Amino acid sequence: MSELVFKRIAILGVGLIGGSLALAAKQAGAVAEVRGWGRSEQRLQQALQLGAVDSIYTDLDEALAGVDCAVIATPTQHAEQLLRDTLAVADANTIISDVASVKANLAAVLQAEALEQQGIEPASARRVVLAHPIAGSEQSGVAAASATLFRQQRVILTPLGDTDEAAIEKVAALWRATGAELHRMDPQAHDAVLGHTSHLPHVLAFALVDFLNAQQNSEAMFRFAGGGFRDFTRIAASDPRMWREISLANRDALLDALSGFRGELDAVERALQAGDGDALEALFARAKSARDAFQADRDAAQQKK
Amino acid sequence: MSELVFKRIAILGVGLIGGSLALAAKQAGAVAEVRGWGRSEQRLQQALQLGAVDSIYTDLDEALAGVDCAVIATPTQHAEQLLRDTLAVADANTIISDVASVKANLAAVLQAEALEQQGIEPASARRVVLAHPIAGSEQSGVAAASATLFRQQRVILTPLGDTDEAAIEKVAALWRATGAELHRMDPQAHDAVLGHTSHLPHVLAFALVDFLNAQQNSEAMFRFAGGGFRDFTRIAASDPRMWREISLANRDALLDALSGFRGELDAVERALQAGDGDALEALFARAKSARDAFQADRDAAQQKK
Repeated sequence: MSELVFKRIAILGVGLIGGSLALAAKQAGAVAEVRGWGRSEQRLQQALQLGAVDSIYTDLDEALAGVDCAVIATPTQHAEQLLRDTLAVADANTIISDVASVKANLAAVLQAEALEQQGIEPASARRVVLAHPIAGSEQSGVAAASATLFRQQRVILTPLGDTDEAAIEKVAALWRATGAELHRMDPQAHDAVLGHTSHLPHVLAFALVDFLNAQQNSEAMFRFAGGGFRDFTRIAASDPRMWREISLANRDALLDALSGFRGELDAVERALQAGDGDALEALFARAKSARDAFQADRDAAQQKK
Repeated sequence: MSELVFKRIAILGVGLIGGSLALAAKQAGAVAEVRGWGRSEQRLQQALQLGAVDSIYTDLDEALAGVDCAVIATPTQHAEQLLRDTLAVADANTIISDVASVKANLAAVLQAEALEQQGIEPASARRVVLAHPIAGSEQSGVAAASATLFRQQRVILTPLGDTDEAAIEKVAALWRATGAELHRMDPQAHDAVLGHTSHLPHVLAFALVDFLNAQQNSEAMFRFAGGGFRDFTRIAASDPRMWREISLANRDALLDALSGFRGELDAVERALQAGDGDALEALFARAKSARDAFQADRDAAQQKK
């Protein structure tokens, strides 16, 4: 059991990530009471039945009254507006956090000028601790939630320069209680890294499957696709709506990653056209070496825990 | 146990695929005796110790003398020449097959004119049954060989118009004994399908890892890469030499697939630049739907067996 971090928290959006955080934090004893807020009564009832939350709300004011921490865990497209709404409604001492895959757009919401335009006191941004747990799966919804989802997974906190250190430490403690490993990064660096290592591969996987599906002999293509194809395209089974929103929210970093990757494909194409086996093999060998090192690091981290 | 298909076979190149075929065929009782031929005495000794082969040869003439079937299972870059050498040396009634990932280049070797230029009797091509088991892993070498590698996997035979039907049936029976599911395709169609579903994803995975590895913050990129990235890039751990040779052997089909895929990326890039969420979501949704159907087919096939 962990120490109690927050007496009462509200999970705003009880899906896979929000539900798993609630289950893990409760199981670890890091929170005493979890409120679930959402737009769909039916989904909230499901979260209640699964024991992820202790009470449910469709009214944001009621859900936030008297909570120590509110975690925004809705899909990306609702996160910006919900962050503004939460800042406007929550008690002055309520810590606010989130789990969104893109951070720079939320950091922009927290800029003093942007808050003033919304009639929100700029100083209230100091108690917002932006966070991104790098976990999840191609599944979604609270039915797939698990108390172990974040174990040995990385959570990146992306506080701003003036975020309250005590608030950062409380949110870090909440995540540590789930078994996650904590890191810090600035929002722009986070978005560049995730744009390259997560958003770009998702877009490539979607694009490849869509491309094959459009071929005249697509039936044969899929019938004879092997285990390599299966793993390469697993993430193409992800939620299209969610990835539309992530792609748009991180558009600049994703376009930058895509453009760089197309430069790499230029090199592959040139080598193929020239029949330059040495250039191809050198590229493949560099990739294998980096991929082997990545896997060795993962395996070592797994063993350590 | 299967019926005996061949009394004596020679596996030319005893690595992961050749070794697994030998183990599976012996275990099923489809062959009574397996000879192993290769260039490295050390690797042959390993195959012998693992029980994959009963006797070992570094001399091709000796290995082929009196065998009912010879299976070329060397890396792609040696397959063309070894096919010519085997045709020149093998007894007139020896059936010849292979396991290479690319077929059109081997079909070209079997053209009458090409054989005549090599001083080989064109009619001898009728007993060559080109084949491709769609199995394997990012591992290689006989130490990774397994009698179960081909179970429930697909094997594509790519006979030519005048290939001997009895020879085709014998090779099909050998593969059926390993638990594989047999299919037929013409060599060009095979190479187009595999170019799209196997060779293209491998090249994309290598290219993505090489691209990330070249970034200034590549250390952070790999540190925060998640499970999606891990699966997407698993095939980038494959043997660079082998993939150099496959890429070159199937250059035209691979360039064609790469060019088509880049057209798909154009569409993604345009939608991102225009902020066209509907177009992105439609593309992602088509991909998810096709990927879900692919997975459902695989799961159904798995259950049936």
